[in-house]
Amino acid sequence: MFSITVREHLMIAHSFRGEVFGPAQRLHGATFLVDATFRRAELDDDNIVVDIGLATRELGDLVGELNYRNLDDEDAFKGINTSTEYLAKVIADRLADRVHAGALGEGARGLSGISVTLHESHIAWASYERAL
Amino acid sequence: MFSITVREHLMIAHSFRGEVFGPAQRLHGATFLVDATFRRAELDDDNIVVDIGLATRELGDLVGELNYRNLDDEDAFKGINTSTEYLAKVIADRLADRVHAGALGEGARGLSGISVTLHESHIAWASYERAL
Amino acid sequence: MFSITVREHLMIAHSFRGEVFGPAQRLHGATFLVDATFRRAELDDDNIVVDIGLATRELGDLVGELNYRNLDDEDAFKGINTSTEYLAKVIADRLADRVHAGALGEGARGLSGISVTLHESHIAWASYERAL
Amino acid sequence: MFSITVREHLMIAHSFRGEVFGPAQRLHGATFLVDATFRRAELDDDNIVVDIGLATRELGDLVGELNYRNLDDEDAFKGINTSTEYLAKVIADRLADRVHAGALGEGARGLSGISVTLHESHIAWASYERAL
Amino acid sequence: MFSITVREHLMIAHSFRGEVFGPAQRLHGATFLVDATFRRAELDDDNIVVDIGLATRELGDLVGELNYRNLDDEDAFKGINTSTEYLAKVIADRLADRVHAGALGEGARGLSGISVTLHESHIAWASYERAL
Amino acid sequence: MFSITVREHLMIAHSFRGEVFGPAQRLHGATFLVDATFRRAELDDDNIVVDIGLATRELGDLVGELNYRNLDDEDAFKGINTSTEYLAKVIADRLADRVHAGALGEGARGLSGISVTLHESHIAWASYERAL
Repeated sequence: MFSITVREHLMIAHSFRGEVFGPAQRLHGATFLVDATFRRAELDDDNIVVDIGLATRELGDLVGELNYRNLDDEDAFKGINTSTEYLAKVIADRLADRVHAGALGEGARGLSGISVTLHESHIAWASYERAL
Repeated sequence: MFSITVREHLMIAHSFRGEVFGPAQRLHGATFLVDATFRRAELDDDNIVVDIGLATRELGDLVGELNYRNLDDEDAFKGINTSTEYLAKVIADRLADRVHAGALGEGARGLSGISVTLHESHIAWASYERAL
Repeated sequence: MFSITVREHLMIAHSFRGEVFGPAQRLHGATFLVDATFRRAELDDDNIVVDIGLATRELGDLVGELNYRNLDDEDAFKGINTSTEYLAKVIADRLADRVHAGALGEGARGLSGISVTLHESHIAWASYERAL
Repeated sequence: MFSITVREHLMIAHSFRGEVFGPAQRLHGATFLVDATFRRAELDDDNIVVDIGLATRELGDLVGELNYRNLDDEDAFKGINTSTEYLAKVIADRLADRVHAGALGEGARGLSGISVTLHESHIAWASYERAL
Repeated sequence: MFSITVREHLMIAHSFRGEVFGPAQRLHGATFLVDATFRRAELDDDNIVVDIGLATRELGDLVGELNYRNLDDEDAFKGINTSTEYLAKVIADRLADRVHAGALGEGARGLSGISVTLHESHIAWASYERAL
Repeated sequence: MFSITVREHLMIAHSFRGEVFGPAQRLHGATFLVDATFRRAELDDDNIVVDIGLATRELGDLVGELNYRNLDDEDAFKGINTSTEYLAKVIADRLADRVHAGALGEGARGLSGISVTLHESHIAWASYERAL
């Protein structure tokens, strides 16, 4: 099994609802390092997993939709706790949509899975992994 | 599949028995960066994998039982080579016990697995992965 | 010249005023890794720069005053662009006040300087350095 | 499941063929951080996954065969795009050969899998994973 | 004294002349992480060291002039050992030229110094520091 | 001003005397990442700061004298608190001796300074800087 990973980052504000979140119920923010991993069983004709240029462009574009925003004000997240693990899924699912739409190239249709890891600090991170 | 990881660290002395260990048969020591990962298929009602506050507290408490000690003198490790991979299992198993005892909250009973990685330096690390 | 550095982190929301900031004029947020460095010419009687326990406690306490907040709502920062470089100075100056007040121990009066580095992402950071 | 990982690095020149590679079709180069992971279900009699001394020596020796070279001029890679993901497989397969030949010790015959990750920069890396 | 640092990277081929370089006399390559630091005594009217957007754009542009190339074939480096420390100076001097030309904004004329660090691997890096 | 830095690591046991050290008064241990920096105003005839091969060999040799040992049992450290900052000085001074003895090559006589940073964990490190 092969994979490649590209890293982007994201700077957002948000707050959480629920006692479990303690002081993070207040409006605060985070820098998320976003690592997107693409997996497939065999390499394509160019000897790669996916066009890393397209993968980087699409991840950057997708992260740009969230970047420099207060997630509490975004329609997509109304009433939702935008936890690190939840945001990992949001980004993985949106990347999967782009793969299916052909935005990562025809070769990307051979991908078997995606995982996304979001680092919220040097001591905490979260991941979501899914099939394609 | 979702996961979250929290990082702690640990500073211990120990020695190894067996020619395979070369100079590490002498009493020496290590700083271990301890990464504990918790996994589950679906998020809980708060949209999280586990209460990261409780996870951090319990990992810190558990690491505190080993920290600033000579493992050669600990009853739990008499006659045992406390290799990095073995210690990863010790910490994973003790975390699993705490999950089962409810110390990470009721929601943590939905966790499906734990893995622990111990970094002994910038060029060597070991992991142990288990179901819950 | 000797120094020691301890690392904490901080998760805040804020926004900037001025065209130079582009999309960062919107309310967003950041995780800052906070590295506080203490310098002195000679070690003290315990052979250290400063009591690392006290340094960590005071840095953590000071960071806690800012953590999980929207800096735009804090009286201390009304009308101020809380840039990474500016926040490095805020933390360095508050640490200096604590050193002068004796909170880092009597030995800390021998410190000659402090610097604070705030990492806002894996590709950008800022520092402020001052004498004591 | 247990694993240990050791890190080496590699500095090579190469070029790619295919429009997908853009400017990387020109002769350029890379430093690859090489992380080799060895997996097994149970620890051996010394309480380890594999003799880390032998693992490090064999990985270093194997990396030395590629180091400080222009891969375009190597017979093994004639007409092949030496992408990061492809090189991860080359190194994993060569390590597997050495395990089977006994170069990592008799105990290493109990290993169940190998994976190799090559970091080409702080924002991109690739992996290959295989059974033994 | 304040500073900000931005990170880029660079992938090049080159070779060295001189016995001191051993196997690095062969054509090989490197990924350089490029950290450019800008220093000044006081913040500008926007409360920053320099417009980080312009600094990132200019560093990226400048790095792009060297990226994906065999430095042995570049006119600028004919007969020159393009060591890591030498390339740090090249990049620092070219950044300084851009500052003086106004490419980093009028405010950047208040900068007092630049330093550039190039990481050639996880275990070796080099820096060059100069006044403006 | 130019510099190059090379990284090694060191795994030792030790204990401290003095209430300020709290639980670190017990016998424990540490992995130290050891970063040795060499500085000079101008590059030598090979366009380098120092022969990185010799620098790495000498640092490795010097670190080997301390590695896999209980520092409490070493004659050189009897009655001395081997704090991170103190050990940074020990290594810097021993490196300076080797430079003066010619072990880093004749060119190394042009070096103007050395600094050594020891990382004891991901959240604490110490440095010592001296002239040559």
